[in-house]
Amino acid sequence: MAECPETGARAGELVTPHGIIETPVFMPVGTAATVKAMSPKEMAEIETQILLSNTYHLYLRPGAELVEEAGGLHRFMNWNGPILTDSGGFQVFSLAGINKILEDGVEFVSHLDGSRHFMTPELATQTQEKLGSDIAMCFDQCVKLPCTREEAGKSVDRTLRWAARCQSIHRREDQALFGIVQGALYDDLRVKCAEKLIDMDFPGYSIGGLSVGESHQEMYRILDLLNPVMPKGKPRYLMGVGYPTNLVEGVARGVDMFDCVLPTRNGRNGTLLTSRGKFNIKHSRFTHDWGPIDPDCDCYACREFSRAYVRHLYRSGEMLSARLCSWHNLRFLISLMKRARQSILDGVFPAFRAEFHRLFGESNPL
Amino acid sequence: MAECPETGARAGELVTPHGIIETPVFMPVGTAATVKAMSPKEMAEIETQILLSNTYHLYLRPGAELVEEAGGLHRFMNWNGPILTDSGGFQVFSLAGINKILEDGVEFVSHLDGSRHFMTPELATQTQEKLGSDIAMCFDQCVKLPCTREEAGKSVDRTLRWAARCQSIHRREDQALFGIVQGALYDDLRVKCAEKLIDMDFPGYSIGGLSVGESHQEMYRILDLLNPVMPKGKPRYLMGVGYPTNLVEGVARGVDMFDCVLPTRNGRNGTLLTSRGKFNIKHSRFTHDWGPIDPDCDCYACREFSRAYVRHLYRSGEMLSARLCSWHNLRFLISLMKRARQSILDGVFPAFRAEFHRLFGESNPL
Repeated sequence: MAECPETGARAGELVTPHGIIETPVFMPVGTAATVKAMSPKEMAEIETQILLSNTYHLYLRPGAELVEEAGGLHRFMNWNGPILTDSGGFQVFSLAGINKILEDGVEFVSHLDGSRHFMTPELATQTQEKLGSDIAMCFDQCVKLPCTREEAGKSVDRTLRWAARCQSIHRREDQALFGIVQGALYDDLRVKCAEKLIDMDFPGYSIGGLSVGESHQEMYRILDLLNPVMPKGKPRYLMGVGYPTNLVEGVARGVDMFDCVLPTRNGRNGTLLTSRGKFNIKHSRFTHDWGPIDPDCDCYACREFSRAYVRHLYRSGEMLSARLCSWHNLRFLISLMKRARQSILDGVFPAFRAEFHRLFGESNPL
Repeated sequence: MAECPETGARAGELVTPHGIIETPVFMPVGTAATVKAMSPKEMAEIETQILLSNTYHLYLRPGAELVEEAGGLHRFMNWNGPILTDSGGFQVFSLAGINKILEDGVEFVSHLDGSRHFMTPELATQTQEKLGSDIAMCFDQCVKLPCTREEAGKSVDRTLRWAARCQSIHRREDQALFGIVQGALYDDLRVKCAEKLIDMDFPGYSIGGLSVGESHQEMYRILDLLNPVMPKGKPRYLMGVGYPTNLVEGVARGVDMFDCVLPTRNGRNGTLLTSRGKFNIKHSRFTHDWGPIDPDCDCYACREFSRAYVRHLYRSGEMLSARLCSWHNLRFLISLMKRARQSILDGVFPAFRAEFHRLFGESNPL
């Protein structure tokens, strides 16, 4: 592993049964066993190293048993590279209808059909084993911001007890189970949660409960806080973060892995992330713009189509608009992390970071 | 050109500035300068020989001037193969809001924004010249079925007068202008229209006003009627027909070219056309079906994904479902015409036709 001498940036390798992942890495999200608007072949073409899929969604539809029957998620969706699954912890709180937290688990109502379910650490772990992901997550309790110190403290304690139950029932040796650090914006709770999880010796650590409404200064403070606490030799995954500025700043604070629906969701809305900042393709200033989406990008959308054409597609509600914009946004984030890694290896990460900010600008939706 | 000695089936070649088209051929429809759910690269991969695009739609959005500014439709949409444009005749009657037919042209209201327009034979021709298609259509008057003999007769006479005006104003030597045979289901009017257009010596002839509600027996009767009337040495294009059974029967009656939105529209609805008939992927009998969409197909969707997975995608409202189903349906029709051609060249078209019907079945939506 290479480290930046001036920041916390690291360039490492993560070995999985489906391949070695070079970090830092951005993981595209395939919620329902497909990255929206993309095909697996295209995901490989843009050099996706690892995909994320959602246990909550797959548990509800089509069901983990069907995925298991297919031979696991890799075969079901025809993706032969590494896959990470979340635990469903975030979704049972954010997406499900009514939910009720008990010590044993969470009662929730499906957002799809109103059916009632009870998710426990054991069920979340076993569901991920059926899915057969390379990296699984412990079932955690997420809290909404703002939250009181007492609420945050309780959620940390429960997350730790649940992590122990997940670890205890987890069987698959071809699947790594990561612990998740919670603690909202309370520094001492974050450090306590991290230290307890480290004592339990997980093969990797996730940072959850960020990018949920806090300022980016608050996010960066938590990352700065955890950076020296986390063990050097294990991967660190900042969950649900995908804005380019946050990725680069996360890398500077020792984060190795990121995921977010942002590039595909933005892509469907016509919002493009480029080396020169973000913009929406529907704007009339692109009517006669025959240049590429991003002159610095090597993706299919940028190589073969003009902004004027993509704008026409977007205004016409054509699927190819969502495809090309998602394609570019994903490639942009994957390429961004690839270039960050190279700059770390070359010992020039601070210059890379400064140049990125200069070109991309400081616009930040958080 | 090869001909089947027992039927009217023909295998020919059509030379255009963007390549030679081997007929019979199915032309996928790219209404708004994109074949819905597909990319140009994928259209080439499934061996698309020629695309169709709609003058009415492009005239309204983004406007022919913008396409012309891009360097024409080929460059605008990044498709380097041949393109055929219709004249907008069908759409001003079927899609536009209020329309009023005058001798000079048609007043209509845009289905997009309610704006008022006046389309004439001259404007339709000049618009197609700006789009720069390889093959353009005369602006014709379509009638709805059922229609009286008097209505049909008037529409034929007007279509002929408009055809003369289109021919007279048409300038581009790199664009072929086809005449369109109208006449509803009146045999003598159809023959009269065809003969008058033939006298005008167009480089190709389209058969319009079919597949608009008549039975397939009626459609076949008109084709049987026109087959001996049409000149042997020129292409014949049956407009708006894409159901597999109709394609094979059209070929048997001397048709060289077909187009239809059916494969992509059906694909978005989860309806699949296969060598063994059609079915909808949402059906519960495919829940555990790990086989391909069509065991006889060589397309990406059939090579790489299972029916069970595509069903999951469809039920989840995922774009990849529309993509894979459109992809397969298009490849199926393109491949069907390719195989029909080969059977004509091999002198075994009647056996091909019988075997197609035996496997596909007689289901017909007309």
